[in-house]
Amino acid sequence: MTGQVRVVGAGLLGSSIGLALRAKGVDVILHDSSRGTLTLAVDYGAGRRTESGDAPDLVVVAVPPDETADVVADELQTWPGALVTDVASVKAGILADLHSRGSDTARYLGSHPMAGRERGGPISARADLFLGRPWVICPHDDSAPEQLRLLEDLALDLGAVPVEMTPDEHDRSVALVSHVPQLISSLLAHQLSAASDKAVGLAGQGLRDTTRIASSSPDLWVQILAANAPAVTEALRSYRADLDEVIGALENQQATGSRRVVAEAIARGNDGVARIPGKHGQAKQFSTIVVMVNDQPGELARLLTEIGEFGVNMEDLHLEHSPGAQFGLAEIAVLPEAEKRLVAELEARGWKIAGEHA
Amino acid sequence: MTGQVRVVGAGLLGSSIGLALRAKGVDVILHDSSRGTLTLAVDYGAGRRTESGDAPDLVVVAVPPDETADVVADELQTWPGALVTDVASVKAGILADLHSRGSDTARYLGSHPMAGRERGGPISARADLFLGRPWVICPHDDSAPEQLRLLEDLALDLGAVPVEMTPDEHDRSVALVSHVPQLISSLLAHQLSAASDKAVGLAGQGLRDTTRIASSSPDLWVQILAANAPAVTEALRSYRADLDEVIGALENQQATGSRRVVAEAIARGNDGVARIPGKHGQAKQFSTIVVMVNDQPGELARLLTEIGEFGVNMEDLHLEHSPGAQFGLAEIAVLPEAEKRLVAELEARGWKIAGEHA
Repeated sequence: MTGQVRVVGAGLLGSSIGLALRAKGVDVILHDSSRGTLTLAVDYGAGRRTESGDAPDLVVVAVPPDETADVVADELQTWPGALVTDVASVKAGILADLHSRGSDTARYLGSHPMAGRERGGPISARADLFLGRPWVICPHDDSAPEQLRLLEDLALDLGAVPVEMTPDEHDRSVALVSHVPQLISSLLAHQLSAASDKAVGLAGQGLRDTTRIASSSPDLWVQILAANAPAVTEALRSYRADLDEVIGALENQQATGSRRVVAEAIARGNDGVARIPGKHGQAKQFSTIVVMVNDQPGELARLLTEIGEFGVNMEDLHLEHSPGAQFGLAEIAVLPEAEKRLVAELEARGWKIAGEHA
Repeated sequence: MTGQVRVVGAGLLGSSIGLALRAKGVDVILHDSSRGTLTLAVDYGAGRRTESGDAPDLVVVAVPPDETADVVADELQTWPGALVTDVASVKAGILADLHSRGSDTARYLGSHPMAGRERGGPISARADLFLGRPWVICPHDDSAPEQLRLLEDLALDLGAVPVEMTPDEHDRSVALVSHVPQLISSLLAHQLSAASDKAVGLAGQGLRDTTRIASSSPDLWVQILAANAPAVTEALRSYRADLDEVIGALENQQATGSRRVVAEAIARGNDGVARIPGKHGQAKQFSTIVVMVNDQPGELARLLTEIGEFGVNMEDLHLEHSPGAQFGLAEIAVLPEAEKRLVAELEARGWKIAGEHA
């Protein structure tokens, strides 16, 4: 990236983009409707304030989903020489909105960096926020190849992995891999409100995993879900049909085929989860060993150091704490051919292996 | 535990119980309807074959859920001096079944160790399988205190944490914390079958977490879900009512209150997930920092060693790989008061911090 980049919205995403571009020497012009947020972001080094004579080549709109189309339309009008992009999580509605306003959509090219949103504001901004994350770019009928290249350069400069999709393809995709899982997890977590303390005390890693994202922000998610309502409801209706079938089968266990319905629901889940790519895009094909680690500083580091000494490459690691016990269980994924040797080496060094599975 | 323990069913759970008790010097009598499985389990040292003159004090039935009541009834009849327990995942139905057969239920006390089931058979058995896991014991009207103590001793000898619940309380609890999450996750993963390769390529940690347990065994789960159908369908119907409400709100966004319905679904999920106890039963109250770790052997170990050197206690660790990038992101949970110092120390040593959140 060279030239001036104007970033509108100095929250987590906007300030992180600013910080990363500033680190590359790009002239970043920051703007925010809140004077306090803008001051803070400038103080943190995410860019400078607007000056007369500014002529940005690229405008990045990083405001909440509900405000994105308004701000993009304004920026298109204000900067007739600039390409305008945005970073909102839903894409087709913004383009349709701009079309209906008669905006110069030939200079609008939407994008969506799939990066963290845990805590907002410029204080939480990080130049590294986009490292290794997919950055979806959504060309439409009026998009020119050089515009696509400009956004790809932006994504690459920020350490992200550019992915090209149409706006509809993007919205259907994120409905399936992000928006529907968020709702499903939130609704599941809500069921725990009815559980006794003793019941939640039985919670294992499965429940923790399935409900982890249920702690996400309602303010942000209501905007995302509303903006992607058609794709989300399509997937949710399909989900509900499957759910109805299973509930029906469990309610009528004497009916022929009811067990098969339940078994197929689980088996189809096996097939679905196998489609998620693992580390570096490979399909999942690791063996997991579970090692007991005493809850003392340095114990996990010692384990990982020793695994490194055996020359075994650890593909994934997950630490699980046992409720009520003073140790954790480290789930370590390795290539299947390394599993037996690693278990033997670890046991020889006195580590307790609490499980192995393919 | 002293005296003879008879274990019926030499699969993962039965053989693991046998191995753990043998390690404590207990005389373990193994039985399995499969001659091959029994031979293998005896070869692995999980116990010995039945001999004439055996007089077990305790019989542990560790057969598939569908067969449990039959086998418990047989064992109660064969060993009139023994307490008989089982390790099946659902409890009320077995007791009701035994009552209806006229079995001597005064000598039956059901239990449920909440331990791994990833891979079956005696080959996968581990004496450490139950370490730190809850082991639910379900006394009923005819249960005597000394029977409860005997099973508590069994659980403690195996390193588990005994928890007392009525059979109904157990079944409702595991429906909420285990059986419903399993189904919800399987049904969600099935939706991915309709997704394009490009769409699943956008999968982030949220999707991976919510669908991790969807790789569970259909054979086992159809039995568990069928056995706990009343409690599971009750929770699923409540879940479906919430789902219907959200689908309705997203389909009718012009209706007054529709945004509120969606926002509350997410907010209620926040409340639900906050009920899950964290490490050692504490409520979750950690800050998370995300550190970039190059994909080279020993890098993660170096990070953890340095965290240990700073005197910061790591409460939890999760490693996430970035698709298409040659590094991972280590999510490290620490006490909130340690967050700022740890970030400063790590940055001073050249680690890249990719995020912080409370």
